[in-house]
Amino acid sequence: MPGVQFARSHLFMAAREGKGPGVVIFGAPLDVTTSFRPGTRMGPRAIRDYSWALETYSLDMGRDLEKVVFYDAGDLDLAPGEIEGALSAIRHASAAVLAAGGIPLMLGGEHLSTLGAVEAVFERHQSLAVVHLDAHADMRLHYMGQKLSHAGVMRQVSALVGRENVFSVGVRSASSDEIEYAASPEANFRPGSLRHLGDVAQEVRERPVYLTIDMDVVDPAYAPGTGAPEPGGPAASELLEALLSLEGSNIVAADVMEVAPPYDPSGITALLAAKVVRQLIMLMAPGE
Amino acid sequence: MPGVQFARSHLFMAAREGKGPGVVIFGAPLDVTTSFRPGTRMGPRAIRDYSWALETYSLDMGRDLEKVVFYDAGDLDLAPGEIEGALSAIRHASAAVLAAGGIPLMLGGEHLSTLGAVEAVFERHQSLAVVHLDAHADMRLHYMGQKLSHAGVMRQVSALVGRENVFSVGVRSASSDEIEYAASPEANFRPGSLRHLGDVAQEVRERPVYLTIDMDVVDPAYAPGTGAPEPGGPAASELLEALLSLEGSNIVAADVMEVAPPYDPSGITALLAAKVVRQLIMLMAPGE
Amino acid sequence: MPGVQFARSHLFMAAREGKGPGVVIFGAPLDVTTSFRPGTRMGPRAIRDYSWALETYSLDMGRDLEKVVFYDAGDLDLAPGEIEGALSAIRHASAAVLAAGGIPLMLGGEHLSTLGAVEAVFERHQSLAVVHLDAHADMRLHYMGQKLSHAGVMRQVSALVGRENVFSVGVRSASSDEIEYAASPEANFRPGSLRHLGDVAQEVRERPVYLTIDMDVVDPAYAPGTGAPEPGGPAASELLEALLSLEGSNIVAADVMEVAPPYDPSGITALLAAKVVRQLIMLMAPGE
Amino acid sequence: MPGVQFARSHLFMAAREGKGPGVVIFGAPLDVTTSFRPGTRMGPRAIRDYSWALETYSLDMGRDLEKVVFYDAGDLDLAPGEIEGALSAIRHASAAVLAAGGIPLMLGGEHLSTLGAVEAVFERHQSLAVVHLDAHADMRLHYMGQKLSHAGVMRQVSALVGRENVFSVGVRSASSDEIEYAASPEANFRPGSLRHLGDVAQEVRERPVYLTIDMDVVDPAYAPGTGAPEPGGPAASELLEALLSLEGSNIVAADVMEVAPPYDPSGITALLAAKVVRQLIMLMAPGE
Amino acid sequence: MPGVQFARSHLFMAAREGKGPGVVIFGAPLDVTTSFRPGTRMGPRAIRDYSWALETYSLDMGRDLEKVVFYDAGDLDLAPGEIEGALSAIRHASAAVLAAGGIPLMLGGEHLSTLGAVEAVFERHQSLAVVHLDAHADMRLHYMGQKLSHAGVMRQVSALVGRENVFSVGVRSASSDEIEYAASPEANFRPGSLRHLGDVAQEVRERPVYLTIDMDVVDPAYAPGTGAPEPGGPAASELLEALLSLEGSNIVAADVMEVAPPYDPSGITALLAAKVVRQLIMLMAPGE
Amino acid sequence: MPGVQFARSHLFMAAREGKGPGVVIFGAPLDVTTSFRPGTRMGPRAIRDYSWALETYSLDMGRDLEKVVFYDAGDLDLAPGEIEGALSAIRHASAAVLAAGGIPLMLGGEHLSTLGAVEAVFERHQSLAVVHLDAHADMRLHYMGQKLSHAGVMRQVSALVGRENVFSVGVRSASSDEIEYAASPEANFRPGSLRHLGDVAQEVRERPVYLTIDMDVVDPAYAPGTGAPEPGGPAASELLEALLSLEGSNIVAADVMEVAPPYDPSGITALLAAKVVRQLIMLMAPGE
Repeated sequence: MPGVQFARSHLFMAAREGKGPGVVIFGAPLDVTTSFRPGTRMGPRAIRDYSWALETYSLDMGRDLEKVVFYDAGDLDLAPGEIEGALSAIRHASAAVLAAGGIPLMLGGEHLSTLGAVEAVFERHQSLAVVHLDAHADMRLHYMGQKLSHAGVMRQVSALVGRENVFSVGVRSASSDEIEYAASPEANFRPGSLRHLGDVAQEVRERPVYLTIDMDVVDPAYAPGTGAPEPGGPAASELLEALLSLEGSNIVAADVMEVAPPYDPSGITALLAAKVVRQLIMLMAPGE
Repeated sequence: MPGVQFARSHLFMAAREGKGPGVVIFGAPLDVTTSFRPGTRMGPRAIRDYSWALETYSLDMGRDLEKVVFYDAGDLDLAPGEIEGALSAIRHASAAVLAAGGIPLMLGGEHLSTLGAVEAVFERHQSLAVVHLDAHADMRLHYMGQKLSHAGVMRQVSALVGRENVFSVGVRSASSDEIEYAASPEANFRPGSLRHLGDVAQEVRERPVYLTIDMDVVDPAYAPGTGAPEPGGPAASELLEALLSLEGSNIVAADVMEVAPPYDPSGITALLAAKVVRQLIMLMAPGE
Repeated sequence: MPGVQFARSHLFMAAREGKGPGVVIFGAPLDVTTSFRPGTRMGPRAIRDYSWALETYSLDMGRDLEKVVFYDAGDLDLAPGEIEGALSAIRHASAAVLAAGGIPLMLGGEHLSTLGAVEAVFERHQSLAVVHLDAHADMRLHYMGQKLSHAGVMRQVSALVGRENVFSVGVRSASSDEIEYAASPEANFRPGSLRHLGDVAQEVRERPVYLTIDMDVVDPAYAPGTGAPEPGGPAASELLEALLSLEGSNIVAADVMEVAPPYDPSGITALLAAKVVRQLIMLMAPGE
Repeated sequence: MPGVQFARSHLFMAAREGKGPGVVIFGAPLDVTTSFRPGTRMGPRAIRDYSWALETYSLDMGRDLEKVVFYDAGDLDLAPGEIEGALSAIRHASAAVLAAGGIPLMLGGEHLSTLGAVEAVFERHQSLAVVHLDAHADMRLHYMGQKLSHAGVMRQVSALVGRENVFSVGVRSASSDEIEYAASPEANFRPGSLRHLGDVAQEVRERPVYLTIDMDVVDPAYAPGTGAPEPGGPAASELLEALLSLEGSNIVAADVMEVAPPYDPSGITALLAAKVVRQLIMLMAPGE
Repeated sequence: MPGVQFARSHLFMAAREGKGPGVVIFGAPLDVTTSFRPGTRMGPRAIRDYSWALETYSLDMGRDLEKVVFYDAGDLDLAPGEIEGALSAIRHASAAVLAAGGIPLMLGGEHLSTLGAVEAVFERHQSLAVVHLDAHADMRLHYMGQKLSHAGVMRQVSALVGRENVFSVGVRSASSDEIEYAASPEANFRPGSLRHLGDVAQEVRERPVYLTIDMDVVDPAYAPGTGAPEPGGPAASELLEALLSLEGSNIVAADVMEVAPPYDPSGITALLAAKVVRQLIMLMAPGE
Repeated sequence: MPGVQFARSHLFMAAREGKGPGVVIFGAPLDVTTSFRPGTRMGPRAIRDYSWALETYSLDMGRDLEKVVFYDAGDLDLAPGEIEGALSAIRHASAAVLAAGGIPLMLGGEHLSTLGAVEAVFERHQSLAVVHLDAHADMRLHYMGQKLSHAGVMRQVSALVGRENVFSVGVRSASSDEIEYAASPEANFRPGSLRHLGDVAQEVRERPVYLTIDMDVVDPAYAPGTGAPEPGGPAASELLEALLSLEGSNIVAADVMEVAPPYDPSGITALLAAKVVRQLIMLMAPGE
């Protein structure tokens, strides 16, 4: 309509609608195997909503999202209660973005979604390193009899890309079985401080990287709205600072997962996730 | 992306994006003069979100939204704290819809927005009748020194279209000054029961109608999330039933106003508003 | 400060601060024996806050609070966990209001407070009738070993003023022991519909009346924020309408009790209570 | 411990722990196919929690739960994201209760659970009538490609017991396909008012009855915390009154479903569900 | 009333009502240009409410509020939607306090209010230094076409008192335009750590200081209830510690802004603001 | 029921029901003298609910709760509004656990409960050291005229076991009178950092220890749901780390107090409390 301006609030701030050759955001509102409390289906939408509370300019990176070309393709339309179909849709969407020369940036949604995306990326990048920020190891072989669940997604990813190619940082919760698997000599398991991300960044500098961030990696005070918050984690500022160490890495795909808005009336979880997404776009987008 | 389905959840369910010759939804997230509690800026978005919890088929009207051609143009981009500019944008948007042969259906947003829309409609329809469902008279000449406010919007509308052409139904709260004005002999003031809407529908049957619904017309139990809920009103079922009496009326524009999501964590206000919007689309859309 | 206007939002709207010869509001934020869920200590404050969302004019009574002289004395300062001291403070405050020719209107706070107020009023008015609107009989002799509790307040009141002088209306929940006591032939127990209030009003027309309203008398949909909501009650409109039947009664003191804000984020309980208080002031205040 | 009393708050009030020959409550915290918003997994627990706000005595039935022998077996331990296994566990639990001469009373949990319970009951009672109170028809053949979902549970039940043996009361929302199926001549579809339950009760008086109650049958004002609230329904008091018409029916199993606590901070949904459960126990339990 | 004690909970704890020669608290419930989410109008009241959860004694300052003479004048009565009038009222109130030898301590309310207060203070103190703690630069020349907005308040203040006299500490969010302005050589822009406040305190020791604190300066985990929370900030303890470095400064006026209670059901934002206010009173009040 | 698995969610995860010779958890839902805001009665239940979000394995202790024998005896059944009776029940329960060779681990409930438990423990262990983690000194002689209150519990404990045997760590709020008492030379008052716990652990290594943890010892960001949150405290990770310094101590009884769920919709307070309880069980339980 001439002379009338409409808001673009259904997109991540400053994004173009659809997909293209740069970073392409899409939402995977999966919410099926969440074991403690559900609501991750509302995560992608909340992240976009809260992005509008942020500046497009990043003070610590000195870059402006307004000068970056990137896209928001919207949310996948997933059938409720369906796991295999959802993973397949995620795989297809990721592959389509890659095929068009794009860089997939998935918003979650439960962490299991990462499996679908990694499958698509691994097909293109056989030397893939998966960098994993999470409070939980997510390395269970089974969870209550299920192989496909948020609690075992990194076990499946490890089986696919090789245990030695998964770099878990920030883990502070695991079962004893998981520890046995995750902390084996051939694995790259760096529990505790997020400062280990700097070392990992060095190690994988020459390789294509899939970066997966479970928002529960920070303390529940900073991200109360996740499916399984784990007390005793780092501050949001530590996460944001750690991400800066990835500057110069070759991140070919990424995701920001497990935002569960119903348990966070103040919205600070989605807000932090939105800031993380903003930083990731700048890290991944080709230079201006 | 081929083989991948994306959700259309930023639109009112079953709507086409943009505008066209049928009903055209647009949001007016005005939230400036709310006197008791703010948050109406989040109303339009919430109504769309909750529309997806409803069926496209209406059991009591026997019609299906899937078979109606209508549009969702998105939300106007209004500057915070700005009244005149917002009213002008609303007037322009309404006029643009009308010019294209469309029927504007505005989602609010505070009730003051109605003034802008009525201005545009009245220019085209000089015999306009304004049908007004509300718990409050909204007939103040001034409110704390302000002429333009949600508390006086129907006074402004009355001044524009003529007091005798405003039909207020459901009012249960007013100042004594307002009563003096609203209940004057030449006015059409029907406080109390929503059943008066049937009589009004008869009276205005031959005329073009602007229908404005302040969601606080129902009891706060049914719509806790409004700017100024007023205890002692009718049930949601009474509102939905009353709307059926408008079948056959010539509604040339309508609005659904004052949804303030922050005070309604269960979302039932936006949900009821969404159902009202669904019914209005069916009432206003040309026959299949 | 000259030229600067300050809000009076800590008072019930339109009230004068302090006390005087008309209706005198005071808060009794008692919150000790609440058995299911606490929070009634925040009731009086919330009622005042929400009063500002209402008009001073009452459409169905045709009167304006602005033309009524009444006072707000503030909240009693009660020690946490202390019952006897609180009842004594309430008795003293009520007596002081009465001594000054005023009409006490207490805001609760848990229902047990009513005992203190009735004691003061009964001392002055030996022919007192107590009219009691409540979802619960509140007639327990003991509750978990305690004689003084919200669950037995009307038993204590009955013991004081005589069982035949307590008129309970609207009760829909009781223990079998209570029913035996409350529904005895000499008692005036009118469970179920609020329409019985009209009959009661007739019966007590010649007598001084203490009116006590437990806000849980309406359905939890209309008053979710009470200590012990009881499903299956009347609508807010039925309560407001029933109150009109008291026009002409000689209400010498009243209270509005059991508002528990923490369980009602939308505030509709306190809002309804505020409207009830507004109506009571008009019912009790001497004619203009 | 001698001299120390422990609360039994993890059970429905007045229940004995475990199972036995009378009514046996058990929870089915299924929460997988919820399409709009999740959280039904927390339903059974919330119903028990809120039961303690009620009296054991029912004023309108004149009976006391303290004099009824009934049991609470706890919640089934269901794997997250697993449908078939959950339905099987529900079938087994129901069958086990029946085998021991008990009457299963399931607390939900999403409505799909009803299929498992009906399967077990139908095996024992081939002349079973299923009485279904719900705002939605739940008669979809598929929902987003899924046969097993809350949106199609009554279609599956109809296929099992025969369409003519399912009596749906209170429906006010359906797709056009569902209406075609549900409202066919051989079906017993009574949309709208809950008063039709009286007629249904007459019709099925001689038969064993499975009674399934989706809590969204009442208006969202009375039950905001359900997976898919539908505006425009009856009051809680109408549901409670309608249930009285089942006095004398031969209810051999029942369920109370779709309580989703995260969207109802005031807890009135679970509270109403608890009162419904209390009434059902009295309706189903053998005379004292 | 003799023998009856009333609470003083509408005042900041330990304050005298009205105004006088010491610190004078007043609320400026402005809430018009809030761009992301509104609710700051409820800030001043919430700060007072939560003050009562604190001790009057400050362990780290070794002083007791009970021994400080200070006042609480209440909240300005601002018309909804009106900016100029509000700024004028704030200017007048601040000037009146100063004229009476008092020290204004304003509770917000949106940050734009600071402009009115600084205008009054600057008129008296031409050598004024404005110390500004904030997550955002608030240095926009225009915000969506508006010059007067929370997003540009410090730009207006800078224009008034001189850019070199504004000391911004703690900023972590800004637009690129703002950075250009705020970080110019003649400006005193200290983004990042709150520890820079110590240096600033040294620099301005000899000058009259206006101290403005936007509560969003701390991480959203510590202050979720603000209009525009910004992830990645310092802890509350860092803010409280930084304030100690102002001991001995000549603070002639101060404000604590942007508390937006609707988004913080736990109230920790208002609680922290109340503690900051308590510390400020001790910093500003003349020695005992 | 054969083939059907039931959840044990009413117990702390991995606990056996009842009591026995190891650690015995029991809840003391006291909620009477809470002065600022109530709700601690719901604390014990919430801690158990949230325990299920945690792993049984502790990564930083290298131990698994699955391999520890411990019990959950449920919640004491306390009469509302009754203090003396509650303290007596707590004393009896603690004594019963001790008599059976168990180690009491009480879940609160308001802090006053600690007095009852310490009385029982002190009777057995005359050389008892009480280690006290809290934001408040809790050393008031009277609080609004009451001797028995949460605000004075450690004063009563000090009077019982000797002031020199109470080691308060983490205090950041006190009245001036309390400071005079608590910080006297013979006392062991270590305000501020939780790192002092290491020194205390050294000092009391040879003695039987009662460990009482008021959850408000951490910053409100990490535990918003307590009766009296105090801004400016340490992070959850600092508390968890400090607890590790107690490894090897002879803790003969412990408690985790003041969890008030109504003010923490995200549940992170109860979640952190559950993790603290898990760590305490491992610290106190006899070696595997």
